[in-house]
Amino acid sequence: MEQNARPLDTLNQARGKTVLVDLKNGTRFVGKLRAFDIHINTVLEDAEESKNGEVSRKLGTVFIRGDTITIISPA
Amino acid sequence: MEQNARPLDTLNQARGKTVLVDLKNGTRFVGKLRAFDIHINTVLEDAEESKNGEVSRKLGTVFIRGDTITIISPA
Amino acid sequence: MEQNARPLDTLNQARGKTVLVDLKNGTRFVGKLRAFDIHINTVLEDAEESKNGEVSRKLGTVFIRGDTITIISPA
Amino acid sequence: MEQNARPLDTLNQARGKTVLVDLKNGTRFVGKLRAFDIHINTVLEDAEESKNGEVSRKLGTVFIRGDTITIISPA
Amino acid sequence: MEQNARPLDTLNQARGKTVLVDLKNGTRFVGKLRAFDIHINTVLEDAEESKNGEVSRKLGTVFIRGDTITIISPA
Amino acid sequence: MEQNARPLDTLNQARGKTVLVDLKNGTRFVGKLRAFDIHINTVLEDAEESKNGEVSRKLGTVFIRGDTITIISPA
Amino acid sequence: MEQNARPLDTLNQARGKTVLVDLKNGTRFVGKLRAFDIHINTVLEDAEESKNGEVSRKLGTVFIRGDTITIISPA
Repeated sequence: MEQNARPLDTLNQARGKTVLVDLKNGTRFVGKLRAFDIHINTVLEDAEESKNGEVSRKLGTVFIRGDTITIISPA
Repeated sequence: MEQNARPLDTLNQARGKTVLVDLKNGTRFVGKLRAFDIHINTVLEDAEESKNGEVSRKLGTVFIRGDTITIISPA
Repeated sequence: MEQNARPLDTLNQARGKTVLVDLKNGTRFVGKLRAFDIHINTVLEDAEESKNGEVSRKLGTVFIRGDTITIISPA
Repeated sequence: MEQNARPLDTLNQARGKTVLVDLKNGTRFVGKLRAFDIHINTVLEDAEESKNGEVSRKLGTVFIRGDTITIISPA
Repeated sequence: MEQNARPLDTLNQARGKTVLVDLKNGTRFVGKLRAFDIHINTVLEDAEESKNGEVSRKLGTVFIRGDTITIISPA
Repeated sequence: MEQNARPLDTLNQARGKTVLVDLKNGTRFVGKLRAFDIHINTVLEDAEESKNGEVSRKLGTVFIRGDTITIISPA
Repeated sequence: MEQNARPLDTLNQARGKTVLVDLKNGTRFVGKLRAFDIHINTVLEDAEESKNGEVSRKLGTVFIRGDTITIISPA
């Protein structure tokens, strides 16, 4: 493990891969990570939204405001 | 996928197109994306507000304060 | 649509006109837009406050702190 | 209406006059506006606090932290 | 009333005197104001905490994080 | 009482001593104050967590994010 | 105890070790601390998420947005 690993390095390595994103309000998105910035504003492609474990919407491209996110995890 | 895609690029490409905007309080807007800034303050035109899946108001032009937004997605 | 329209331009064009302002706590104000700043701190004149769709107070001039606002829309 | 009116001008004109201040938690204060700053930190004199429409405390001088305020209106 | 009175002047004049401090969660502290800063981080001495109008703890010295405070009032 | 006492001076004097730390969610920690910074990020050693007045966990060293803290008081 | 210990030193010493991370919404993660930054954005590896004391998901690598964290403690 590198001594100086930074959190955004992890997001950078996940670009183009499928990730799950959980929001503070309990909503979850699964999609391909297209972009993020230092505020953790995030764009997914081919995104599906789920609530309570069930897919509720297929959204295609979705911009998620960073301050509403709790976690991002490679699927 | 470009290595350095930025989230606001996605919003920029959606200018003039119909988007849906979800708020932290559960309200949803659908309208044409006219403007946004780095705080994600957003202006829609021909906007309809819906709550619980039903259109509640036709608002025409609406300024949405960025910090109340969870997601923006091209319709 | 101009490529570089900014959200505050929309508010600027609404100066002196009647707007509705929704707050995070569900309160709504309708009044004439007198002033706003980059924090979206906003001043209305001849303002009426309504809750649950009924006018609850006539307030005359009211200063609204920006961070409590969700949307501003020309009436 | 001046084209460039700013929200804090309205507060400045209310110095020394009676204002009502509503907080995010539903509490209301009525008192003489003595001071405010850019964070909307506000000091009232001869202030009365009310909850649910009834005066609950006479506080004399009170410093109100700006981020807890929703509106300030000349009485 | 001075035209340019600032909110922190009021807190400065209360140094060494007994003040009450209300928090966003409904807790109240009464104690001697020892220190504060621009974030309204505040230190009381000989402080008593009360909830629902009853003294719940005697705390001696207490540091209160500014963003949890709604009001500070000389007792 | 010094005229210019600052809140962080109080925390500095408590370094190495036992303090109690209350969080916004009602959790309380008691432990030895090892470190803090200007955001009030705080590290305790030999820390015990309690909820509703009962010790729920012994944690040893704990880093507490500053914005979740309401008060810090020497025990 | 060093007089000038800083909170992030504690996190730095925990790099590569197992930590528990509690979130504001009551979720807990246990995993190996890979990275953090000044916002306390944090990356865990081999992470397990638990709610109400039961493991709910094995997530592998997880990026946790700092502002959703209450505490980080070496396991």
